[in-house]
Amino acid sequence: MLDKLKYTVCKANMDLVAQGLVIQTFGNVSGIDRSKGLVVIKPSGMQYNKMTPKDMVAVELSTGKVVDSHLRPSSDTPTHLEIYRAFGQVGGVVHTHSMYATAWAQARREIPVLGTTHADYFHGYIPCARLLTSKEIKGDYEANTGKAIVERFANIDPMEIPAALVADHGPFAWGATPSEAVHNAVLVEYLAQLSHITVNIDPDALPISREMLDRHYLRKHGPDAYYGQAEKDK
Amino acid sequence: MLDKLKYTVCKANMDLVAQGLVIQTFGNVSGIDRSKGLVVIKPSGMQYNKMTPKDMVAVELSTGKVVDSHLRPSSDTPTHLEIYRAFGQVGGVVHTHSMYATAWAQARREIPVLGTTHADYFHGYIPCARLLTSKEIKGDYEANTGKAIVERFANIDPMEIPAALVADHGPFAWGATPSEAVHNAVLVEYLAQLSHITVNIDPDALPISREMLDRHYLRKHGPDAYYGQAEKDK
Amino acid sequence: MLDKLKYTVCKANMDLVAQGLVIQTFGNVSGIDRSKGLVVIKPSGMQYNKMTPKDMVAVELSTGKVVDSHLRPSSDTPTHLEIYRAFGQVGGVVHTHSMYATAWAQARREIPVLGTTHADYFHGYIPCARLLTSKEIKGDYEANTGKAIVERFANIDPMEIPAALVADHGPFAWGATPSEAVHNAVLVEYLAQLSHITVNIDPDALPISREMLDRHYLRKHGPDAYYGQAEKDK
Amino acid sequence: MLDKLKYTVCKANMDLVAQGLVIQTFGNVSGIDRSKGLVVIKPSGMQYNKMTPKDMVAVELSTGKVVDSHLRPSSDTPTHLEIYRAFGQVGGVVHTHSMYATAWAQARREIPVLGTTHADYFHGYIPCARLLTSKEIKGDYEANTGKAIVERFANIDPMEIPAALVADHGPFAWGATPSEAVHNAVLVEYLAQLSHITVNIDPDALPISREMLDRHYLRKHGPDAYYGQAEKDK
Repeated sequence: MLDKLKYTVCKANMDLVAQGLVIQTFGNVSGIDRSKGLVVIKPSGMQYNKMTPKDMVAVELSTGKVVDSHLRPSSDTPTHLEIYRAFGQVGGVVHTHSMYATAWAQARREIPVLGTTHADYFHGYIPCARLLTSKEIKGDYEANTGKAIVERFANIDPMEIPAALVADHGPFAWGATPSEAVHNAVLVEYLAQLSHITVNIDPDALPISREMLDRHYLRKHGPDAYYGQAEKDK
Repeated sequence: MLDKLKYTVCKANMDLVAQGLVIQTFGNVSGIDRSKGLVVIKPSGMQYNKMTPKDMVAVELSTGKVVDSHLRPSSDTPTHLEIYRAFGQVGGVVHTHSMYATAWAQARREIPVLGTTHADYFHGYIPCARLLTSKEIKGDYEANTGKAIVERFANIDPMEIPAALVADHGPFAWGATPSEAVHNAVLVEYLAQLSHITVNIDPDALPISREMLDRHYLRKHGPDAYYGQAEKDK
Repeated sequence: MLDKLKYTVCKANMDLVAQGLVIQTFGNVSGIDRSKGLVVIKPSGMQYNKMTPKDMVAVELSTGKVVDSHLRPSSDTPTHLEIYRAFGQVGGVVHTHSMYATAWAQARREIPVLGTTHADYFHGYIPCARLLTSKEIKGDYEANTGKAIVERFANIDPMEIPAALVADHGPFAWGATPSEAVHNAVLVEYLAQLSHITVNIDPDALPISREMLDRHYLRKHGPDAYYGQAEKDK
Repeated sequence: MLDKLKYTVCKANMDLVAQGLVIQTFGNVSGIDRSKGLVVIKPSGMQYNKMTPKDMVAVELSTGKVVDSHLRPSSDTPTHLEIYRAFGQVGGVVHTHSMYATAWAQARREIPVLGTTHADYFHGYIPCARLLTSKEIKGDYEANTGKAIVERFANIDPMEIPAALVADHGPFAWGATPSEAVHNAVLVEYLAQLSHITVNIDPDALPISREMLDRHYLRKHGPDAYYGQAEKDK
């Protein structure tokens, strides 16, 4: 059951390591099979060099109940589930503690759009979800983390800005597939470092104009995109 | 047609990756055959590890029209063309989103001549082209980017300072050949990082004196250069 | 005698190099056999690539006297001994001059708990031991360094915060085994860099709440931990 | 003639590259045979991967005249010669444009003794030679650079602090042998980065006390050194 998705999710977890985004056993990728209502995710605290596709843990999207595995899913699973429930087009979710994105999250600051590199991939600043209340922390903490992300996206299209910071914690990213989610996590880390250096050079650096943001985002995304090759030549 | 130039341009694009200046598919190198009036450039959005010389796309210098290829040229091609048209000695152009140079561009600041490392290669600060107007962004955006670079060099010899930043975007560099252009892009990134650290240590760091700038630049360039070996011993 | 411990300590010293925490010959790991009252440590100033288990030097916990070796133990041995004497659960001690942790030590600042990455491993800020007095420096300097660490932990559980900075010097870390001590030294360096970037982005960055600190620390440690796998599945 | 010294100097130049201190063709190492009054140095602007011992250029200590080579010596040779002439115990000299040390030089600031890592190797701050006058720049520039270094050491023992920064330029280091000079250049770069991070965390970070400086320097150097192994065990 779910062999292909388990393979895809395992590979995406390995890619996360290869991209340098993982410290210790931090970092996890999941993928979803919406037709079956199941999410596949990395097991909790497992070392990356020992992981195989069959170790991936499937849980029910609706209940979080483990299906057919004696391993525990990542402790962040409830956060992933909230994202899948709220954002219907998401096919893969990533969580890391990558250095620069985590620093922005710890500073509780959104990552501003300071240049076209950012605008080429994200159609606006990368939002930072609010701190949780005492009650939320002591209660269903991981689910509440996911709910804070969803709350922050009330007026944002999660497919145009497929990533969020969680205050005092770190970045989450998503995409149409687990592999796209990893790609977006790499970009968030790159932009976090680039923005950090920029504000280091000029603490009052200004965001780019709306026209520049749209020009760069839309030349790569949407019906009028002219970046890259035609489908037949890819 | 243009086999040798396509080989040279493809190799220069590969060198750009080897030098660590490329993030994702950002970054492109072109070269020109002025006798034929043709510019050869990397195809748009193509992955570097799949690229071969025959994938390079030739376009007409005067019109930008693609010659003999079914692939799209880099979306930045019009910027390259403006540089070739205005700077007659340029044989190769490079564009990257390398980390530190892009940060200076995002801070909209020219890179000052803070030491002799800079003066050994560039005969003055590295200029930053102005922000484009709304109209320029919505119009022929990539060509207008090139025009802003050329405008900024009204009183600067582009062969003595073979690089520019574009505000909110990133660095362009050029040279007598594609390979020299890559070399200059590497230097811009190195100087951007070095200057960043310097202003971090002292935000009020002063540029070097005119005498030092000339001494170092001219000991490596021009008729009285005494750095390196005589031609016969190179 | 002590063959297994010498092997373990030698390997831990090698791991320290592999983790990038060693500059020149700085850095040393020790381990203890409490039943025999002996501590095994790296020899002083020895190059890492020439070191073998039999070069490890055993000293008496109570007196510091070398047992059965013609090599000198690390000059920091008296500091290690003070830590073993005061903290009865410690089985391994590490000292490094790793870049970022050393910088915090030189700034004489404790590393605050700025996010959950920190809270997952250390149950509070990483303390900084005070400067030594002139008399302490001129006297039994290395032992006094250890005493200043122990003094700083008067009200801190050394197994919940298994690391300290020494003002103007660098980090020490410990754990139940030499390998765990190395692991904690790696984490201290990571957190030192992460905190540095965070305060760079926001000099007034605030520590996380007590609830968040406890939630993250206790989900990985203690009787109610739910991170990782059950013992049988590890 | 001088085969062994040429081999030593060539290897030291290669080590400089291996240590990551060289950008482009910047960086050169020399060695001296005081009995013959000859200095051997890297040829000017030569690529490191093409260099062999027989390419090393010998010059007279007293006159700077090239002996028995058709290659030009490094353009920095006159600076090296001034150092050899003034500091009689120096056997090797290194010049680099290594990133962090060059940044301190560009900020025209001496590198303060902010911790014991520094004190273990240098018996005081790393001095910065003054800016040259217009006349000195236009005259015998490279020799004048060396004279400014020597002038700065009027009251400093160059064997206790075997390195200097040159304002707006970069670091020079030296030692009893070319290999020791390279070692010191590596340490200068490490300390420059460490100090940079320290002042980043606390712009008002204070130097260590005189007692600490002496304690650490003297435990590794001089008659009462107790760091490392006895001669017979090295």
